[in-house]
Amino acid sequence: MELTLQELARLVGGELEGPPERVVSGLKGIEDAGPSDVTFLANPRYAKALPHCRAGVVLVRPGQEVPEGLAVIRVADPYLAYAKLLAKAVSKPYQPLGVHPRAVVEQGAEIGREVSIHALAYVGPGARIGDRVILHPGVYVGPGAQVGDDSELRPNVVLEPGCVVGRRCLIHAGTVIGADGYGFVRDGEGYFKIPQVGVVQIDDDVELGALNTVDRAATGRTWIQRGVKTDNMVHVAHNCVIGEHTLLVAQVGISGSTKVGKNVVLGGQVGVAGHITVGDGVMAAGGTGIAKDVEPGAVIGGVPAMPHQLWLRTSSLIRRLPDLFRRVRSLEKRLAGPSE
Amino acid sequence: MELTLQELARLVGGELEGPPERVVSGLKGIEDAGPSDVTFLANPRYAKALPHCRAGVVLVRPGQEVPEGLAVIRVADPYLAYAKLLAKAVSKPYQPLGVHPRAVVEQGAEIGREVSIHALAYVGPGARIGDRVILHPGVYVGPGAQVGDDSELRPNVVLEPGCVVGRRCLIHAGTVIGADGYGFVRDGEGYFKIPQVGVVQIDDDVELGALNTVDRAATGRTWIQRGVKTDNMVHVAHNCVIGEHTLLVAQVGISGSTKVGKNVVLGGQVGVAGHITVGDGVMAAGGTGIAKDVEPGAVIGGVPAMPHQLWLRTSSLIRRLPDLFRRVRSLEKRLAGPSE
Amino acid sequence: MELTLQELARLVGGELEGPPERVVSGLKGIEDAGPSDVTFLANPRYAKALPHCRAGVVLVRPGQEVPEGLAVIRVADPYLAYAKLLAKAVSKPYQPLGVHPRAVVEQGAEIGREVSIHALAYVGPGARIGDRVILHPGVYVGPGAQVGDDSELRPNVVLEPGCVVGRRCLIHAGTVIGADGYGFVRDGEGYFKIPQVGVVQIDDDVELGALNTVDRAATGRTWIQRGVKTDNMVHVAHNCVIGEHTLLVAQVGISGSTKVGKNVVLGGQVGVAGHITVGDGVMAAGGTGIAKDVEPGAVIGGVPAMPHQLWLRTSSLIRRLPDLFRRVRSLEKRLAGPSE
Repeated sequence: MELTLQELARLVGGELEGPPERVVSGLKGIEDAGPSDVTFLANPRYAKALPHCRAGVVLVRPGQEVPEGLAVIRVADPYLAYAKLLAKAVSKPYQPLGVHPRAVVEQGAEIGREVSIHALAYVGPGARIGDRVILHPGVYVGPGAQVGDDSELRPNVVLEPGCVVGRRCLIHAGTVIGADGYGFVRDGEGYFKIPQVGVVQIDDDVELGALNTVDRAATGRTWIQRGVKTDNMVHVAHNCVIGEHTLLVAQVGISGSTKVGKNVVLGGQVGVAGHITVGDGVMAAGGTGIAKDVEPGAVIGGVPAMPHQLWLRTSSLIRRLPDLFRRVRSLEKRLAGPSE
Repeated sequence: MELTLQELARLVGGELEGPPERVVSGLKGIEDAGPSDVTFLANPRYAKALPHCRAGVVLVRPGQEVPEGLAVIRVADPYLAYAKLLAKAVSKPYQPLGVHPRAVVEQGAEIGREVSIHALAYVGPGARIGDRVILHPGVYVGPGAQVGDDSELRPNVVLEPGCVVGRRCLIHAGTVIGADGYGFVRDGEGYFKIPQVGVVQIDDDVELGALNTVDRAATGRTWIQRGVKTDNMVHVAHNCVIGEHTLLVAQVGISGSTKVGKNVVLGGQVGVAGHITVGDGVMAAGGTGIAKDVEPGAVIGGVPAMPHQLWLRTSSLIRRLPDLFRRVRSLEKRLAGPSE
Repeated sequence: MELTLQELARLVGGELEGPPERVVSGLKGIEDAGPSDVTFLANPRYAKALPHCRAGVVLVRPGQEVPEGLAVIRVADPYLAYAKLLAKAVSKPYQPLGVHPRAVVEQGAEIGREVSIHALAYVGPGARIGDRVILHPGVYVGPGAQVGDDSELRPNVVLEPGCVVGRRCLIHAGTVIGADGYGFVRDGEGYFKIPQVGVVQIDDDVELGALNTVDRAATGRTWIQRGVKTDNMVHVAHNCVIGEHTLLVAQVGISGSTKVGKNVVLGGQVGVAGHITVGDGVMAAGGTGIAKDVEPGAVIGGVPAMPHQLWLRTSSLIRRLPDLFRRVRSLEKRLAGPSE
């Protein structure tokens, strides 16, 4: 990537303050960037690095003060602009590899155009694979399952029968979509398995991390809506609905039939009970234990979940419990004294 | 499935109150069921739906009050009866597929009758595969491992060498049985690995969820007893014993050499320390941290584990700690005042 | 293995007290060992078993009192000595199997000497596989990835493109090395993916448990240093550094850009926030929630993390909160009484 600052400003939709003909070709952090690099300033905490900055140009917010002589491009979201430049710089044109002779595509599967089905991938009968789909080695697409156009399933992903992945999805390695939901009913001394006859539906533009599990519904569907992004080892149980553009950080577990709204963020290791509703825009700190419905927009933490500000205060007091018990004992003694 | 109510009553062992010749063919929830459907009422909370219920027949408990004119079959456990009907309706006769030419079965493996060994499954030397076993693509059955009759290993399950799965088991995708237990001993600046020379033994009628890990024993066996059912991402360490008909919900982790009794239920994300005993019939709420032995029949919650009733009260008080600290401070001031 | 006690003493570097010509051939626990077995006494709690011990010889610490007539070998670390004997007894000479005809090795991969690349393993173009490496069925080694000499990747391990595993490493089944780090930036109503262009570097002598995830760095590397040992289901996010000889027990999750020092032990289900530093030698009890930097050598527990001794006292008080609230209420009443 070689661009003049003028071209760069146009590309990111920003306003240039600096020499329009200067050429930059690399992308680096603010401390490492040199005269031929673009860098960015998003977090104000790093503004102190500006005076020593040697970058060819810095992407900054509109109101940012900058040292004289430092070339900048002012743009509403410098980090987003930088990320898009980086994505552009590292992207390679897609090259379809076709169906490798050592992939296994069963009779009756429908395969789209310009796919890349690698060696040792498996596509079952009745499965439908969209255009430009990439199936890496070890991927399993079960009978009747579907993968939408431009989606990619990394190595050893399992898409069980009848489940659906939308368009432009990225599913990381080892993730299992459509295992049976966990449903049993007591039958004498043991349990009888409730048939899990529903499916998983994953909408467009979803990214699931590595080693996730999204279980098929008992009936109907478990539904991951458009734009959801999950980290690694996230578990979504049967009949859950995860709303648009929600983020589930690593090791989150969500129990059955729970509805998580859109634009929610659940931090790492959060646990959510079954049959509840987590409202739109909720943010939960790592480790939060959510046992009841949560109002839209709430910011929560702790076990059990409480408002985050309250959790911050409470959590700093938990370690002072030994002191508090001593103080109450002392009060009791002093109060007992005079009364005797 | 097409049945008269008379046939249906006989099938579920219940008592019909309604037209014996009416024919039903579908199974639906109480709100969705129409005149040709069977539905059920298990949870009394849904009894208010009965007056509007349009179902051809409703499975209800013996004492349930019902509106006049609504056909019902009275049966001890309506949900169980419904689940069994559903299972019957969706079950398909087993069709053995044989050994796919693109499966890999090594010399010296013993393969039972009427198996279905899919493409890209692997069976090592000395492994024994029972009758009617299903091995999906990507399954690995290591040297000397055994899979009992009528068991099914979903895609990418790993059964390490020498480990044993019983009859009628279902192991969900990506689960790893028989990885080395986690055992190291300090050796100078680093660690020396304790050889893990035991196995995993899984008894009959066990279902393991997706992406579980059950580690092989240091010596002897890690033992999952008959009828155990696990959810996804459950971890069972080396030398554990999990008793009959115990349920382990998603993301439970059990440390080494711990014995979990029979008919136990551990909720999601429960953690259990090593070398302890969790008694028969124990129930632990999601997120419980179990560090010590638990008496049979105990119902527990919290970190560290306490009786569940106590945890319910305690957990509602944790968020009131800031208030409590203020109140104690106020008491101290008032008590200090007069004494000065 | 058949050895005289004299040979055995020399092998473990210990001092024999007993008949030098006695021959032993087995290794058993102190309760089970018979006249032809070696056993050991490491934990003083088991010393009461010594009087009844029937073993041919017992490995004991230098100062251990022993009953008359019991043959012992005194050695600084009896358990380590025993583990080394056990390892010696069960080890088999390595037999290279070569490249199985049903493995897939792409053009341009470099394969070392005496490898064992099993059926259904995949090695991508430009990958480099060292000498005596074992790749089990279902393993994926991506384009440009490297596996050092004498390392073993168990079934279905995924090593994504460009990532590096050192020498003498053991990676357990289903572990995913090099999935994209979890990085997104708001873009209108949804998110834009930050390209993850770094790699994972795993140094020599590392063992990773089953179903781990170690994500590739945003830029640069996620770095697992020499001698690290992880249990199952451990998650290490992008750009983390895990120091030498650190132990991560099952279900630990470490957020992005965090540095964990050397010789650290994090217990099961510990969660660590992002962008912090956990000092050398830290020990954290199972379930600890680490949100801030931790000083070297600290022993911690609880959520949020506190000194372990404090956590032990605090955790025993949490269950007494209902009692404490009652006592404070009672104090308030008594104090209110006289003042009226």
